Amino acid sequence: MISGKTTLIAHLGWPTETFKAPMIYNPWFDERGIDAVVVPMGVKPETFAAFFKSLFTLTNLRGALITMPHKVTTMGLLDEASTTAKISGACNAVLLRADGSLLGDMFDGEGFVRGVLRKGQGLAGKRAFVLGSGGVGSAIAASLAKAGVVALALADAHPPSSEALAARLQAHYPQLELVVGSRDPAGYDIVVNATPIGMRADDPLPMDVTSISPDSFVGEVVMKAEHTPFLAAALARGCRVQVGTDMLFEQIPAYLEFFGFGSTTPEELRRVAKLNY
Amino acid sequence: MISGKTTLIAHLGWPTETFKAPMIYNPWFDERGIDAVVVPMGVKPETFAAFFKSLFTLTNLRGALITMPHKVTTMGLLDEASTTAKISGACNAVLLRADGSLLGDMFDGEGFVRGVLRKGQGLAGKRAFVLGSGGVGSAIAASLAKAGVVALALADAHPPSSEALAARLQAHYPQLELVVGSRDPAGYDIVVNATPIGMRADDPLPMDVTSISPDSFVGEVVMKAEHTPFLAAALARGCRVQVGTDMLFEQIPAYLEFFGFGSTTPEELRRVAKLNY
Repeated sequence: MISGKTTLIAHLGWPTETFKAPMIYNPWFDERGIDAVVVPMGVKPETFAAFFKSLFTLTNLRGALITMPHKVTTMGLLDEASTTAKISGACNAVLLRADGSLLGDMFDGEGFVRGVLRKGQGLAGKRAFVLGSGGVGSAIAASLAKAGVVALALADAHPPSSEALAARLQAHYPQLELVVGSRDPAGYDIVVNATPIGMRADDPLPMDVTSISPDSFVGEVVMKAEHTPFLAAALARGCRVQVGTDMLFEQIPAYLEFFGFGSTTPEELRRVAKLNY
Repeated sequence: MISGKTTLIAHLGWPTETFKAPMIYNPWFDERGIDAVVVPMGVKPETFAAFFKSLFTLTNLRGALITMPHKVTTMGLLDEASTTAKISGACNAVLLRADGSLLGDMFDGEGFVRGVLRKGQGLAGKRAFVLGSGGVGSAIAASLAKAGVVALALADAHPPSSEALAARLQAHYPQLELVVGSRDPAGYDIVVNATPIGMRADDPLPMDVTSISPDSFVGEVVMKAEHTPFLAAALARGCRVQVGTDMLFEQIPAYLEFFGFGSTTPEELRRVAKLNY
């Protein structure tokens, strides 16, 4: 029940029609008796900077979730950004701190990492291959580095994206071994498809699955409840896998902690969420 | 259930803790299956103009409810204001029109008028006395003029307020008979206390109730569920009366019509509202 005492979390993006966060956070707030609400706000790119600046003058707002197309722009509007956000070059959560300053972080990769760890796959000292060096690939790479992988292989259809990501990783994790440009997943403990390949029915597989070791853990960002062809092929090889929606539900506890609402589990979120999966 | 398809109505004021609108509108939207939500937003005076301007760039916002302390400031931020808002010198509802322009209106007085009419007391051709020429008194006077009263008597502890209100009324309703400065309610069909006198237990009566004719209709803006001493005295004289909360519940259908959500009755609103009265 929204009242004048309710704490607001703005959800900024455009268009808003496909937003999922309100249907996950708000039922959870209800379940826990937390007087807070996620409010979708549709903001076009040309008005984003001005709206963002004004938004944080509200007296009943704790922070904002940032989604397409504003994750990169937000980086230029913060007082402080986490290392993960800096490497990602993007921010999807902003906290208004008590002193009025804005702290930005990026939890897309954190969701991926939490899911992998929860499935019993360690990351410290492991070697990972992340295909795709766009927004989500950068975020996953940044979070894998934070989680302690010793080697990261990066590749992208646009090679300069991988090179730039590698440089940002190196700046913050100088001990990290970086391999740039190869699309061969052989020899990596963790293999991730962070490209949109697999969203369409006639897409090819994003990489040569026959090179993936059956011992590897294979993850996917394409968000379908069922297994994508890539994950199906990995499963057929005997790999353990993580589906795209796991990244979504695993990252939400991280946001809730960031905003100071306590914590929860992906299982609880899946149970209370008003979504179709 | 808020989603990315939900239409927002911002509720702007500060502080927000005592806001009532969300607990009336939102249960009504739920009851009717209307996908809209009133969202309280705490805005301090020094940031109001900038926030207001940015707010209306949102793609999923239909308008705003304006409350203390921004009703007067808002008048300077509109593309168009209703006659009632101009006379009131204040605005408590803003509609974002399809062409992007902002229309402001003022429904405090409309709520008072609707309540009087619903109780069977006609206004066209009648004579009214409104004590108090501040925000709510000005709004009631403006709406009484719109409803067709032929004479309005105005008085205020600060006489220039009544004089200025009379001048604004005259400019828009040149046929209206105006009486300024007398606090004598004798001879008026409608008598209104639009001062805060009565909010505290030890307040005197706002006017000499013994001068009010038993045939008069007596209204009150002090918002207590029970009768104020002023209304109790008027009832004791045999007058018909209107309590302060009637003005609140009577004005909400006017806002809903203004924002294009259809209409309702105060009775339905009182039934669904999550308030203590």
